[in-house]
Amino acid sequence: MTRFTGIIPPLCTPLRDDFTIDVDSLRRHLDGQLAAGVHGVFVLGSSSEVAFLPDRQRRVVIETTVEHVAGRVPVLAGCIDMTTLRVAEHVRVAEEAGADALVVTAPYYTRTHSAEIEQHFRLLRSRSALPIFAYDIPMAVHTKLHREMVLRLASDGVLAGVKDSSGDEAGFSALLLARRDRGLTEFAVFTGSELVVDLALRIGADGAVPGLANVDPAAYVGIWDRVRAGDLDGARQEQERLLRLFTITHAAPPERMGRGSAGLGAFKAAMKMRGFIDNSVMAPPQLPLNDEELLSIKGTLTEAGLL
Amino acid sequence: MTRFTGIIPPLCTPLRDDFTIDVDSLRRHLDGQLAAGVHGVFVLGSSSEVAFLPDRQRRVVIETTVEHVAGRVPVLAGCIDMTTLRVAEHVRVAEEAGADALVVTAPYYTRTHSAEIEQHFRLLRSRSALPIFAYDIPMAVHTKLHREMVLRLASDGVLAGVKDSSGDEAGFSALLLARRDRGLTEFAVFTGSELVVDLALRIGADGAVPGLANVDPAAYVGIWDRVRAGDLDGARQEQERLLRLFTITHAAPPERMGRGSAGLGAFKAAMKMRGFIDNSVMAPPQLPLNDEELLSIKGTLTEAGLL
Amino acid sequence: MTRFTGIIPPLCTPLRDDFTIDVDSLRRHLDGQLAAGVHGVFVLGSSSEVAFLPDRQRRVVIETTVEHVAGRVPVLAGCIDMTTLRVAEHVRVAEEAGADALVVTAPYYTRTHSAEIEQHFRLLRSRSALPIFAYDIPMAVHTKLHREMVLRLASDGVLAGVKDSSGDEAGFSALLLARRDRGLTEFAVFTGSELVVDLALRIGADGAVPGLANVDPAAYVGIWDRVRAGDLDGARQEQERLLRLFTITHAAPPERMGRGSAGLGAFKAAMKMRGFIDNSVMAPPQLPLNDEELLSIKGTLTEAGLL
Amino acid sequence: MTRFTGIIPPLCTPLRDDFTIDVDSLRRHLDGQLAAGVHGVFVLGSSSEVAFLPDRQRRVVIETTVEHVAGRVPVLAGCIDMTTLRVAEHVRVAEEAGADALVVTAPYYTRTHSAEIEQHFRLLRSRSALPIFAYDIPMAVHTKLHREMVLRLASDGVLAGVKDSSGDEAGFSALLLARRDRGLTEFAVFTGSELVVDLALRIGADGAVPGLANVDPAAYVGIWDRVRAGDLDGARQEQERLLRLFTITHAAPPERMGRGSAGLGAFKAAMKMRGFIDNSVMAPPQLPLNDEELLSIKGTLTEAGLL
Repeated sequence: MTRFTGIIPPLCTPLRDDFTIDVDSLRRHLDGQLAAGVHGVFVLGSSSEVAFLPDRQRRVVIETTVEHVAGRVPVLAGCIDMTTLRVAEHVRVAEEAGADALVVTAPYYTRTHSAEIEQHFRLLRSRSALPIFAYDIPMAVHTKLHREMVLRLASDGVLAGVKDSSGDEAGFSALLLARRDRGLTEFAVFTGSELVVDLALRIGADGAVPGLANVDPAAYVGIWDRVRAGDLDGARQEQERLLRLFTITHAAPPERMGRGSAGLGAFKAAMKMRGFIDNSVMAPPQLPLNDEELLSIKGTLTEAGLL
Repeated sequence: MTRFTGIIPPLCTPLRDDFTIDVDSLRRHLDGQLAAGVHGVFVLGSSSEVAFLPDRQRRVVIETTVEHVAGRVPVLAGCIDMTTLRVAEHVRVAEEAGADALVVTAPYYTRTHSAEIEQHFRLLRSRSALPIFAYDIPMAVHTKLHREMVLRLASDGVLAGVKDSSGDEAGFSALLLARRDRGLTEFAVFTGSELVVDLALRIGADGAVPGLANVDPAAYVGIWDRVRAGDLDGARQEQERLLRLFTITHAAPPERMGRGSAGLGAFKAAMKMRGFIDNSVMAPPQLPLNDEELLSIKGTLTEAGLL
Repeated sequence: MTRFTGIIPPLCTPLRDDFTIDVDSLRRHLDGQLAAGVHGVFVLGSSSEVAFLPDRQRRVVIETTVEHVAGRVPVLAGCIDMTTLRVAEHVRVAEEAGADALVVTAPYYTRTHSAEIEQHFRLLRSRSALPIFAYDIPMAVHTKLHREMVLRLASDGVLAGVKDSSGDEAGFSALLLARRDRGLTEFAVFTGSELVVDLALRIGADGAVPGLANVDPAAYVGIWDRVRAGDLDGARQEQERLLRLFTITHAAPPERMGRGSAGLGAFKAAMKMRGFIDNSVMAPPQLPLNDEELLSIKGTLTEAGLL
Repeated sequence: MTRFTGIIPPLCTPLRDDFTIDVDSLRRHLDGQLAAGVHGVFVLGSSSEVAFLPDRQRRVVIETTVEHVAGRVPVLAGCIDMTTLRVAEHVRVAEEAGADALVVTAPYYTRTHSAEIEQHFRLLRSRSALPIFAYDIPMAVHTKLHREMVLRLASDGVLAGVKDSSGDEAGFSALLLARRDRGLTEFAVFTGSELVVDLALRIGADGAVPGLANVDPAAYVGIWDRVRAGDLDGARQEQERLLRLFTITHAAPPERMGRGSAGLGAFKAAMKMRGFIDNSVMAPPQLPLNDEELLSIKGTLTEAGLL
């Protein structure tokens, strides 16, 4: 087992009306997550609106988080930018702030070859002593990380782990198996597929990074505990409850807004309804949910026993 | 006619071995472009490796350019980032540096609805008095700008123009026609399709933003002059010469590197061979061209009469 | 010049309410096209609803057409199916019916390598003496034909020509240039981009296959005649008129139906309004246009002087 | 439980050198599958090279299969074609041959709206009394079936089931849950994801349609039996063995051939090595595996204890 293990939610970032970080809400949200028993936190991932936050806001998020968590659990920091030198800037900030690990995507905006993606991770490894997780998220960067490349980087000590948000569960299963067959015991494999966490843990994942844990962290910790205790039926039951809860992300229809803002808007609205944060505002140019959509989310939360 | 017109090359950025800006080469490259008669320059576009440059390097590029051009032609500055607030940071720098216009893409990394893209441009308009060009480049941002949205933003004074690098020439033709039919005379329409510049100018484009002009600016100015003089056959002949020259971007095969680095690598190698810049290094993680590929590029330049 | 040259419309297929071929309307439509001066006809292309017609209906279309055209212009027959052996069946029917040339796409449904696409065309060549046109339509088959492969097949006498409906005008321009540079004078290059026909002809295309010619064949013949007479301004003016006419294909919004049925539905509705065919029914599962959409099309036809 | 349940392999089609059906091998292959305990067979699916077989060969496959199986297990027949009327032809043949159920994809080649896909299934329902399974395979048809549409068609009695080959395991999980929540007990849900069959069964799938069962049917039957007996660890162990076996589909590299022919070629080569069929030839234009690739497959089969 690696030291990174368990439920590590990708935290949403509470904002004020002027789009600066709502530090008080962030601390309260962290308290809620820690009280629920999460095993780490991941800041500045896609769910954090990292693509929307200027660099100085990103810095506030990570500094606030590291300070507030104060070593109780590991803090993973997304270093999300288009290419190596730009990512390296975020790496420096994360290091200064005291993050425990870095999470890095493949290059985007540019059309990059797999050999260049590999070069990207190797160069970043040479610039930082912190553990690096590859963040496999083709939905955002429009490239899927090749499994053999990931395994080679793991074997060479470049990558400490991977966060797989590709939705390719067969590939995830093959990765877990190859890791075992090649004895890469130090290499941490996390799923970002929040709807099949019980199955991923069941087949050997070290943990999960579920966005929906912003709304219901205890449920994901419950899945983790049950799988470890061998209670697979109980874990599945909880996962099914979360599948139903996840329908809040469809409250706003695709004709009206992007799937990004529909999902994050639902998370933030639910977080506010549950008292985790004060304000559900999203960074521009994302559109806000309307009253009808908020009402529907409230109904789903109530059914799920969360209000 | 708008004040933005003619051949406005998207300048490549000369780098030193440590990936800082080679300011001397940049000035020399600008001199060469201006001597060739270009009607403007576009810095920090995709050809500039904008996706690879840290913010402080971006700032050096634009400050150096504005200072060196000294008002002889307009300087357009790419403000390329994922979403509104991050773009707004680049807008501020471009304004401080004295750019004449801003060039802005749709959001990327995030999955965004057309209504949110429209919001993006409107918000940026409210934050800057500089003319804003929409940069339509689905290859990089994975969204095509809707024609009716672009026309609405033109009509509302949000957009001063568009740089169409979508490769959709039928849509480009429809845009030019709609502009005329709706009397949007102030709205500048540029093509980024460097291989059909003569045709684009012929049907009413205000100008072109051809990456290959980094290698042969005089040829593009020649096309511009000939089309304006009614010499369409001469313009086509020159465009065909450039089509042959463009094969340098295929010197490195797709099995070996990304299409981005193959193209930019060829441009920079040719610029160095022609003495425009001192160093053809590319920012990481792009791979360098090999000797065989460089030799092939040299051959093509020689055939084109450029060496 | 090859023997295939000029305006060769991809004919829509008039259907009866029971989805059998309306042979009378087809003959009348052919008469109208020939009277307008088209230089060939292409049956069983995408515009013909070839993907919707059972084999025996396809056979009726081609037999009726060959018989009725009676050698006045060449008849090209689409042999559209997923892979080689299935296409070969359609080839046999086309040969029996007396078609003058075959039009064949890359394989689809299956994920095929370029070497296999090349093999596909070579095998079909070995099975038929008729000229074969490659039909480059990535929108339908999700593969773009590689330019070098097309040129190699042209050089080896496998392909007699190409119908380029890829929308990649820069690539089209490069293909025309390579054809000239390599002396492939027998190889016919047609554009399927109905909105830039004047430009394609201007730069050396042998002809065009414009779907909109089902509605206004005389206009496309007019463009052809004007370009050949050197009247480029006149040709552009007519092309712009057709650009405006083409907006009929957007009468039905993307929220309501596929772009295929919106476009074909508009063509067929306009053909009926102009008296070319008796019935605008489309094969299932395409949805019909509604009254409001039909009214809008009628308005556009009236503005275009076609009613 | 529906009557369709268990392991229902999508049978590969043995061919002779002239690409006609090798009926003897097909019967022997059927015997092997039945002896291994499969609960049904699916002919004329993607693994059968259905996209490559002319109609009369398709007919031989289904007639031979129905006759040889003789009611021992249900026979599902793929009715794979571009749109409704063409699919209806295959439906008629399947009915005449005595198939027990039909498997139908969304339309392809044409760009179709979800409302038209729904219409497609409803029209086919009105033409046949046989149970219809929707075949969700976006890799081939470039459309993902909408979950709500599938559920509505299930609820209305249009669809008897779905074969989900989309690779979207989270969506699959949501579909299973929605089926239960809405009481659609008659609606059969099968996974086509051959690498996570144990997990799919574990969370409530009625069965699996694994291509790799052509090579090792007993292993998949073993997974089925173990999951039903509550031996999840044993099922996982077998699934992991099959994950390793599946690497035969990567023996031929993507630079050399399409992923379709690499996969089917490996299946057929392995089937021949195991004595299931006499000839591993594939229909054109698929390329054959080379000696090195065959040797690699042999090695993997030996390691898996299958030779």
